[in-house]
Amino acid sequence: MALALEEAARGLGRTAPNPPVGCVLVRGGAVVGRGFHPAAGEPHAEVFALREAGEQARGAAAYVTLEPCSHLGRTPPCVAALIAAGVSRVVVAALDPNPRVAGRGVGRLRAAGTEVVVGVREAEAVRQQAGFRALITRGRPWVVYKYAVTLDGKVAARGEGNGAVTAAGARARVMRWRNELDAVAVGVGTVLADDPRLTTRGVAGGRDPRPVIFDRRARTPLSARALRPGTVVVTAPDTDTAPLEDAGATIVRAATLPGALRGLGQLHLSSLLLEGGPTLASAFFAEGLVDEVRALIAPKLLGAGLAPLNGPPRGMADAAALRAVQLESLGPDVLVTGLLNDIPRLGAAGDL
Amino acid sequence: MALALEEAARGLGRTAPNPPVGCVLVRGGAVVGRGFHPAAGEPHAEVFALREAGEQARGAAAYVTLEPCSHLGRTPPCVAALIAAGVSRVVVAALDPNPRVAGRGVGRLRAAGTEVVVGVREAEAVRQQAGFRALITRGRPWVVYKYAVTLDGKVAARGEGNGAVTAAGARARVMRWRNELDAVAVGVGTVLADDPRLTTRGVAGGRDPRPVIFDRRARTPLSARALRPGTVVVTAPDTDTAPLEDAGATIVRAATLPGALRGLGQLHLSSLLLEGGPTLASAFFAEGLVDEVRALIAPKLLGAGLAPLNGPPRGMADAAALRAVQLESLGPDVLVTGLLNDIPRLGAAGDL
Ligand SMILES: NC(=O)c1ccc[n+]([C@@H]2O[C@H](COP(=O)([O-])OP(=O)(O)OC[C@H]3O[C@@H](n4cnc5c(N)ncnc54)[C@H](OP(=O)(O)O)[C@@H]3O)[C@@H](O)[C@H]2O)c1
Ligand SMILES: NC(=O)c1ccc[n+]([C@@H]2O[C@H](COP(=O)([O-])OP(=O)(O)OC[C@H]3O[C@@H](n4cnc5c(N)ncnc54)[C@H](OP(=O)(O)O)[C@@H]3O)[C@@H](O)[C@H]2O)c1
Ligand SMILES: [Zn+2]
Ligand SMILES: [Zn+2]
Repeated sequence: MALALEEAARGLGRTAPNPPVGCVLVRGGAVVGRGFHPAAGEPHAEVFALREAGEQARGAAAYVTLEPCSHLGRTPPCVAALIAAGVSRVVVAALDPNPRVAGRGVGRLRAAGTEVVVGVREAEAVRQQAGFRALITRGRPWVVYKYAVTLDGKVAARGEGNGAVTAAGARARVMRWRNELDAVAVGVGTVLADDPRLTTRGVAGGRDPRPVIFDRRARTPLSARALRPGTVVVTAPDTDTAPLEDAGATIVRAATLPGALRGLGQLHLSSLLLEGGPTLASAFFAEGLVDEVRALIAPKLLGAGLAPLNGPPRGMADAAALRAVQLESLGPDVLVTGLLNDIPRLGAAGDL
Repeated sequence: MALALEEAARGLGRTAPNPPVGCVLVRGGAVVGRGFHPAAGEPHAEVFALREAGEQARGAAAYVTLEPCSHLGRTPPCVAALIAAGVSRVVVAALDPNPRVAGRGVGRLRAAGTEVVVGVREAEAVRQQAGFRALITRGRPWVVYKYAVTLDGKVAARGEGNGAVTAAGARARVMRWRNELDAVAVGVGTVLADDPRLTTRGVAGGRDPRPVIFDRRARTPLSARALRPGTVVVTAPDTDTAPLEDAGATIVRAATLPGALRGLGQLHLSSLLLEGGPTLASAFFAEGLVDEVRALIAPKLLGAGLAPLNGPPRGMADAAALRAVQLESLGPDVLVTGLLNDIPRLGAAGDL
């Protein structure tokens, strides 16, 4: 399943509204086929793995990171393909929350006499599929709030642009995230202060995420580096956006943040890397819309400066605790990650 | 030497103005004696170790965390005792920066035909002796700035007392530090907001550090829990301190922070755990008086709140970088430690 998860990861950021899925076929202890879902409209992971295995699929075990589909979508159902190929055992990391599958894939396999195991490395798989799961069950992208902060909690010096807070290792990691998430968001304040490009740099085979600028009054300069054909600008319902549209921007109009996120969901953006700044991040945080946190901490003290969040006020006992916290050293810097909201999932095998 | 460092640690917070020192005597692969310096006026570590070893000291190797003394202090010099006991080899972690020793102890041992090695686990020893080294070379305590902060860089909610930021493991660690450092300091703002006791709780064999309140205008209430006989109150030169003195406080008068630290040095306080709040810590930080940082980070987001430091303004490129950074998990929380100033030391063996 570790291999299948690796396969799946190759599709991260490329498959929405579909999930990233990986499949590995094993026979007699040897890998006879592998595949991943490369993009919506392309064949599913299982199809690539079965193609590679050919006749060797007969009697093989399939390791799949997501329950195989049982419905006719843009492609024929994988369940039928696995049965037809004579796969004897299917190991599934996690059930598909898509109401059109939701355990039915596993049910059909079992009905056909195939041995099925569900729940192997489920937590990792669910985490990898967070965007897909948020989009299909909530109609909005999974929001990952990322920030780089000094040890005394400052994301920027006052009145200064976004001077590098962290070192090369941390910045490389951010580029990897941009490559893996569907979209990257900033407020117009950051656009005006830093004019970021919001591109993926230094990642082999990388592609740029879709830039999203939260800009209720359409103040984004036409010269902004993040403004390119396809860039999403989120404005208030009544804002004049003609110049931005002429520049190729896609406009999402919404009166509220949840409304804006639904608009992004309709654009098939399943995951959003929220890169700040403090004003926009605080608004997301205040409404409980930060699903996951990735904090990069540089071991240095700044003294005065901008905090990552500046509201809303609450007591220390009501602070929002991260779950599934993980710690990692990135050169001199420290990465702390964790969840604030649950990733939607169906019960594992035992619950069926 | 690991054992000798452990021995030395038993004296931490008890030996000022002397250093914490440990000594272990080894003969034929067996430990035949060990000792540590328990308090100023008491015998040195070497004396306890030699006493325990008795005749077995002859031909033994001595592992000492600090260069043995060569001058007549309150006790006869250890160099003479080691030679008289017939110790054949002395392994020293670090040279003594005390100008009255400063390599002379090692010199006398070598002159007497004793083999001497210097520099074994030197960095750890120097770190353990930071307070002694700061006091003897700079006349002021080693300042350890400790704070507990949320992942978004808040030490307290606005208008609230010091609600627990971190969990039990981190708080236990702070108690260990209070037991190991000579003094613990807060500003009068923290006294008024939180009325902390500043005692050591839950440490077997623990003792309370000396409380130090930075309070230029003597606003500390006579009912403050940190005010007890011996508590140091640092005031401006002309403040009326009669009521505080009646309550048993020791007054240090100083017009500046460096002056205040010299006053604490004169009280034989070699190490100071600076526990805040933000105003006082920022003043220390602004003047380069924070020697070491110990940041406890709780994986939760508060939103609005008090920053650990609130000044002075500087650019991100001029942030103060920690050196010798270390990372540790303490239950759910993360401890990041590092140095902002160097610990005074003499060159190791190679430099002599
Ligand atoms: N170290 C880091 O990780 C990092 C990352 C990013 C930025 N920064 C720093 O942050 C600073 C910029 O901070 P900022 O707070 O001004 O920028 P920001 O949060 O990027 O932008 C704030 C603006 O976003 C707009 N916005 C749109 N929808 C909003 C909503 N629902 N709620 C709130 N605001 C919304 C608002 O303008 P309208 O009302 O006109 O819509 C608001 O003024 C810069 O100094 C930058 O360097 C640091
Ligand atoms: N989470 C944590 O780690 C932690 C730790 C401690 C406190 N806190 C929180 O911090 C808050 C209190 O903050 P605070 O900043 O008001 O308290 P503070 O820094 O403890 O005290 C500030 C006061 O110290 C006095 N002071 C004495 N010498 C000074 C000097 N050289 N420079 C500057 N000030 C000096 C000043 O009063 P005078 O001018 O009258 O001398 C000043 O008003 C509370 O909410 C508390 O809960 C959190
Ligand atoms: Zn399928
Ligand atoms: Zn001695």
